[in-house]
Amino acid sequence: MKNNLLFIHGGGPTAVLNCSLWGALDEAKKHSGTGCLYAALGGTGGFLKERLFDLRELPPDELELLKTTPGSFIGTSRDRLSEDDYRKMAGLAGRYGIKYILVNGGNGTMDACGRLAEACSGMDVRVIGIPKTMDNDIAVTDHCPGYGSAARYIAGSIAEVAADVAGMPIHVVIIETSGRNAGWLAASAALAGPDAADLIYVPERLFSEDEFLEDVTSLIERKRSGIVVASEGLRGEDGELLVRPLRVVGRSVSYGSVAGHLRELIANRLGYKARGEKPGILGRASVTWQSVTDREEAIVVGREAVRAALAGESGKMVGFERISDNPYKIKTKLIDIKEVMLSERKLPEHFINSRGNYVTEEFIDYCTPLIGGQLPRFAKLKIKKTTVV
Amino acid sequence: MKNNLLFIHGGGPTAVLNCSLWGALDEAKKHSGTGCLYAALGGTGGFLKERLFDLRELPPDELELLKTTPGSFIGTSRDRLSEDDYRKMAGLAGRYGIKYILVNGGNGTMDACGRLAEACSGMDVRVIGIPKTMDNDIAVTDHCPGYGSAARYIAGSIAEVAADVAGMPIHVVIIETSGRNAGWLAASAALAGPDAADLIYVPERLFSEDEFLEDVTSLIERKRSGIVVASEGLRGEDGELLVRPLRVVGRSVSYGSVAGHLRELIANRLGYKARGEKPGILGRASVTWQSVTDREEAIVVGREAVRAALAGESGKMVGFERISDNPYKIKTKLIDIKEVMLSERKLPEHFINSRGNYVTEEFIDYCTPLIGGQLPRFAKLKIKKTTVV
Repeated sequence: MKNNLLFIHGGGPTAVLNCSLWGALDEAKKHSGTGCLYAALGGTGGFLKERLFDLRELPPDELELLKTTPGSFIGTSRDRLSEDDYRKMAGLAGRYGIKYILVNGGNGTMDACGRLAEACSGMDVRVIGIPKTMDNDIAVTDHCPGYGSAARYIAGSIAEVAADVAGMPIHVVIIETSGRNAGWLAASAALAGPDAADLIYVPERLFSEDEFLEDVTSLIERKRSGIVVASEGLRGEDGELLVRPLRVVGRSVSYGSVAGHLRELIANRLGYKARGEKPGILGRASVTWQSVTDREEAIVVGREAVRAALAGESGKMVGFERISDNPYKIKTKLIDIKEVMLSERKLPEHFINSRGNYVTEEFIDYCTPLIGGQLPRFAKLKIKKTTVV
Repeated sequence: MKNNLLFIHGGGPTAVLNCSLWGALDEAKKHSGTGCLYAALGGTGGFLKERLFDLRELPPDELELLKTTPGSFIGTSRDRLSEDDYRKMAGLAGRYGIKYILVNGGNGTMDACGRLAEACSGMDVRVIGIPKTMDNDIAVTDHCPGYGSAARYIAGSIAEVAADVAGMPIHVVIIETSGRNAGWLAASAALAGPDAADLIYVPERLFSEDEFLEDVTSLIERKRSGIVVASEGLRGEDGELLVRPLRVVGRSVSYGSVAGHLRELIANRLGYKARGEKPGILGRASVTWQSVTDREEAIVVGREAVRAALAGESGKMVGFERISDNPYKIKTKLIDIKEVMLSERKLPEHFINSRGNYVTEEFIDYCTPLIGGQLPRFAKLKIKKTTVV
């Protein structure tokens, strides 16, 4: 009987999701004890439909490209699973001689991972979670693969936009970031440097429209223009979403645009020109802005998951513990999946300034190593009054 | 009397605007006949306020960075000018010993350039236009510096998003592009490859919501998901803007979101999940996606403008004429500014398919050389039915 291995991806992709797959595959091939390296095509739903593909068949050239390919190479699913589905998956593991199941995903997927481990208890099947989210909101681990690259995308893009706005200071540009409940991604805008993102609003703080308009007024008075970064999930002082959902059909919610709402607020209440931009999926799909650190760490969690499974662990997720910020040092650790399941990690209070319109130095120290090196430097005209004719 | 030179930037920046400035500066320094290399800080408005800075004072290191710095290094203006302003500028040219004026900008700026040349006629002052627009809508020239980079941004980002959507095919992603009257930028989405942007809508064709919903329905039936690219300036069958402006105050118009509108249309009429993304300014500010061809050509138009001015030309714009698509060959030419002034170049009919929901091969042949080389290749899982377990 071969000790087959199965990969399952769940939830939205990141810029380094396929790096973890590459790391795990590379690690699994080193061990003679492994058999088929199955991918469930399309996540848990694909597994239930027995859509399995042996990744050993992939040509090495194609495999190398995984490290710089966005999306999920083997598909991913967002199906909600019943207790029966978990039992069925455990049965399929037995039928296909699968001894190791590696489940890569975010909060919801870690929940599924824990339930699957539970369903497989009593069998010789080991289930290990690999963390993944651009939103950085998985509990217990210091940070998540996927976040560093998305943060680099936001910081880098905002540094570019800041150069644009400085050259033509006629409007406030509002950039909406992902992160419906947690502000990690919006916060990363601060990495663009001290004169780029001027105001940052995260969902951890209730949003006051009046304070916002005060902030923008003083920004315009000081700089004539500027950049506002806002999480898509801002909530007003009443605790309700600032922009009410347009429509809710079952689990599918159609959200309105926070950037659009704030733009209108500035135009209507201050009479000033404002633009709203929303890069959305472009951010999590951008391998162009992939963080080298993030890529390497995503490979590491893939490898560690395989090692843990082979060592007999189950019901655990691979996570990071930070040893120091500067120099940046981390180590991996195994976390009981029950500690992770469906608990969301928000931006802690000490990462947000007292006004709630920017982040603290502590956050910048935390985030800086994750984006994988400095951003490109741009030319800047420094004019002493005397040099002007 | 020194033969001083003056640079003026007008309109919105591009990813290669500062490359033209670098090229012109580098060229001007080669000629012993030039004196001060003034920049008008903040465009024509800066010139009128006599805010001049001699760019010879810049350290060489900083100068090199211009080629990879987004925005407008010397600022730019959007002021509307009166006849009196043009007369005043001509007077200032005389006062500061300015013999050469190089005006870099888009359609509106070329109009200002022509009027300034007119105001300076009879003086020994030569005025030359340098084209610049991400929208590619300046008349007579084959294409404009700034477009190739913005097109590469759109094509590259959409290729990345396509990999994301293929891995999680649960929605239609609508990406809104710039180009209020001309569809050049939306059209460039086709450069992402045959399986990336599925539907492309440009403002040159009146937009039928019913046909659109038919297109999307057949897309979902065929692929379960996909990518729609839409110009911000789409007009409905009545010829009016599809999304009415939210507010108009003088020249300042607050437009609604086309991506948001189409998303709602899909959700309400087809009951299918859709997302709307709008990268906006991120595109024109992205030097990360700067096209090498575009950069080199932007440098060339800067150089040519200086050469033309020194050779005694005035009231001309530097443009491109295409010799061949493959191999790509162009030459520069001088165009009478009157041919360019305020006339907008739209996507010609033969670049749009008959259904009005994609571009033609001819457009792809035209645009391919401009984006500066192939986009990165991604890993793709090709599954033969038989290899699935």
